[in-house]
Amino acid sequence: MPAKKNQSMIEDKLRALNLTLPEPITSSPDMKMPPSWIRVRGNRAFISGHGPQNPDGSIAGPLGKVGSDDVTLEQACQAARLATLSILGTLKRELGDLDRVIAWLMVSGFVNVAPGFTQTTAVINGCSELILELYGQEVGQHARTAMGVATTPFGLPVIIAAEVEIDNNSS
Amino acid sequence: MPAKKNQSMIEDKLRALNLTLPEPITSSPDMKMPPSWIRVRGNRAFISGHGPQNPDGSIAGPLGKVGSDDVTLEQACQAARLATLSILGTLKRELGDLDRVIAWLMVSGFVNVAPGFTQTTAVINGCSELILELYGQEVGQHARTAMGVATTPFGLPVIIAAEVEIDNNSS
Amino acid sequence: MPAKKNQSMIEDKLRALNLTLPEPITSSPDMKMPPSWIRVRGNRAFISGHGPQNPDGSIAGPLGKVGSDDVTLEQACQAARLATLSILGTLKRELGDLDRVIAWLMVSGFVNVAPGFTQTTAVINGCSELILELYGQEVGQHARTAMGVATTPFGLPVIIAAEVEIDNNSS
Repeated sequence: MPAKKNQSMIEDKLRALNLTLPEPITSSPDMKMPPSWIRVRGNRAFISGHGPQNPDGSIAGPLGKVGSDDVTLEQACQAARLATLSILGTLKRELGDLDRVIAWLMVSGFVNVAPGFTQTTAVINGCSELILELYGQEVGQHARTAMGVATTPFGLPVIIAAEVEIDNNSS
Repeated sequence: MPAKKNQSMIEDKLRALNLTLPEPITSSPDMKMPPSWIRVRGNRAFISGHGPQNPDGSIAGPLGKVGSDDVTLEQACQAARLATLSILGTLKRELGDLDRVIAWLMVSGFVNVAPGFTQTTAVINGCSELILELYGQEVGQHARTAMGVATTPFGLPVIIAAEVEIDNNSS
Repeated sequence: MPAKKNQSMIEDKLRALNLTLPEPITSSPDMKMPPSWIRVRGNRAFISGHGPQNPDGSIAGPLGKVGSDDVTLEQACQAARLATLSILGTLKRELGDLDRVIAWLMVSGFVNVAPGFTQTTAVINGCSELILELYGQEVGQHARTAMGVATTPFGLPVIIAAEVEIDNNSS
């Protein structure tokens, strides 16, 4: 008989890394948002494209084109990491416990590129590395794309969408 | 014992909204098309990228870059709505009854943007709002991305792909 | 009782077509790669974005923008075909036998386009036609998108990601 679960391993790791999940995204009335940030059905969870957020829920800058003066490679990697925390915030609010994610499946990373910027793989590694750091290889490994797109909503430097498998019996 | 189903609720709603599902897309011999518009497997249906169509099956204009003189934001929203009707036409031909869609899961919206056009979320809301209007929140809610891409097939202003869950017992 | 399976039908077809699956991708230390090329979970396999490879595992040129002097339409179609062989190489290494793919579901094709190049459908047909040639209509048919993106990793002309269903009982 399994012992009663008292704490979230993933949230313990987040605390150990001194990382904070952001509040729900805040927006002004003229900022159009997708109708839903996550869709759960059975043991599948589809996650909308998320951008980087500050802990208070506001959009985290810098905004603009990665590879231009607006956003450096390093800033874009950090944006990918913040977008991943934004996804984890959505998962936490939806699932209650981040340990209920039992398999990361697919990550789609879209980088708002300046012409000629081809290091999209390096940028989205900012996401993949955090997932693997938190969840380990068995749960965290995932297939992935890392494209350079022409524009993103609001000029966000990075947008990340994902599909994960969840445990439906532990809630 | 459930009563025999005599009519499609979703098609009733389409009629009430005075919306028409387009005929299968028509193309000239030099226009390359994807090999399939939909892939059904078990209770899952994957939908290829669809663009806006006129009711007769022809591609609906205007074509070109959203945010340029070619296509305004309002026209792009309408194109997203027409692309959604195109998807519904494909689902109707494949499933027989649009009520067999029991959960919208993921919508991927690609907007053919002019440089600097960042209102992709607003454009793809033309799709999401129609799905929610027709199917309601429980069935219609979905995760979503809304990217600005460099080019689309034939210069279509909007392309929308999706994944839905279907009922396999009602056919 | 089914006879013991002695050979792979798909690999027989590859040989008949004189096609070779490439070795795992080789890269220099400064080339960032995705953490995983495939994610298998139950009967689902998610495949990361793959580009064209030479049989020895190196990236296959030409690199650059499709529709510019760098890469012609014909070269891009061939790149899509090589990217498909790269995917098949990954599937072979992961599954042991390519016949374990029992349904192709979704193919996402990203073309590294020059401004104004809209024949992305024709390019990605280089992938779809090979899948259908090898697997036939019942197993091979798939939903698809074919977008023109702003940049790709390393300037690859084509990147293809996919989701397939696999047989878990035959391994």
